[in-house]
Amino acid sequence: MTQPTFKVAIQDLYPDHLAYCYGCGRNNEHGYHLKTYWANDEETVAYFTPKPFHIAIPGYVYGGLIASLIDCHGTGSAAAFAGRAQGREDNPPRFLTASLHVDYLKPTPLGPELELRGRAKEVKERKVVVEVELYAQGELCARGQVVCVQVPDQYIQQLVDIGTARQPNAPEDAR
Amino acid sequence: MTQPTFKVAIQDLYPDHLAYCYGCGRNNEHGYHLKTYWANDEETVAYFTPKPFHIAIPGYVYGGLIASLIDCHGTGSAAAFAGRAQGREDNPPRFLTASLHVDYLKPTPLGPELELRGRAKEVKERKVVVEVELYAQGELCARGQVVCVQVPDQYIQQLVDIGTARQPNAPEDAR
Repeated sequence: MTQPTFKVAIQDLYPDHLAYCYGCGRNNEHGYHLKTYWANDEETVAYFTPKPFHIAIPGYVYGGLIASLIDCHGTGSAAAFAGRAQGREDNPPRFLTASLHVDYLKPTPLGPELELRGRAKEVKERKVVVEVELYAQGELCARGQVVCVQVPDQYIQQLVDIGTARQPNAPEDAR
Repeated sequence: MTQPTFKVAIQDLYPDHLAYCYGCGRNNEHGYHLKTYWANDEETVAYFTPKPFHIAIPGYVYGGLIASLIDCHGTGSAAAFAGRAQGREDNPPRFLTASLHVDYLKPTPLGPELELRGRAKEVKERKVVVEVELYAQGELCARGQVVCVQVPDQYIQQLVDIGTARQPNAPEDAR
C-alpha cells in the first residue's frame, strides 16, 4: 500500500462516541474502517480492499460499496479541509452528507486494493464540496462529488441523544 | 410490512449466475437481499430493515447503505420498467448503474423498516432513469436518481468470464 504523507487518519481524530460510522468509524466492529489521510497539501487519500462478496456481478465491485467509500472519504476529506481552514486540524469539525453523486465510469475489478483521492472543490464556512476519484490499479473507475454540511457538535449530540433513546441497545459509550 | 401487489421480486427473475449482487442477489450469502416489487402500475417498492450496526452516528442509518438501497432498487426498477416496455416481463433485461445521485433530506432513524418507492422518469431503448424515494415511518428521508444502462446478456457474460478468470475463488456456478 502506498504510504500516505501523514500517519494520523482524519477519522481517528473523531471523539469516541462519534466513531461508530459503518463506513469509517473505528468503533464499529462490523464496519469498513475506511481511513482518510492527507496525501499532499492538496489531496486526501484512502485505501480499501473489498471482500470477495462485495460484488455486483462476479469479478466486479458492488456499486453501493463504491458509493459508500466515496461518501465516507468525502466527509472525512471535508473535515480535513475545513479543519485546516479553521485552524483546528487536531479537532476537525464534523460533516454530514447533504448529497452524493457518483459516475460509474467502468466496471471496477474485484481483487486489487482501491485508491480514493479527494480534492476540495469548495470550502465555505459551513459547506464543503469534495470531488473524489476511485482508482483500481491506476485506472480511474468512478468519480464522485460529495456535498458536506458542517454540523455543530451540540446538534450532533442532540441527534445522538434522540437516536439512542429510541435504540436502547446502542453501545453504552455512544449515549 | 405492506404487501406488494405482485409476489415475484424482479431480482428473483435474474438467472442464477447473475444473482450474486451484494445489494440484491439472492445467491450472495453475505448481502442485503433487497427485493423490488411492482407496487402498482406506476411504482415499484422495496423494504429493508437495517441492522443495528448500519449507522452513521448512533441511532441513524448509514448514508452509504441508503445509497446502496437506492442503487439496487433503481436497477431492479429499471429492469421492471424496461421489461414491461419490451414485452419481456418474465425475463427482464439487465441494467448497470451509470450514475447515482442521492439527496439526504433528513437523518434516517434506525429501527423502523425503510420503504423505497421507484418511478420511471425516462424509459428509452437502452437507458432508464429511475427516481427513488426512501421513507421511514412515512417520512421522506432521502431522494435518489439512478441512471441505468441496459447491458446485453452477452456483454455481461464476457465481463463475468474476464472477472472470474481473475478471481479463481469465485462461486463455481457463477463462472
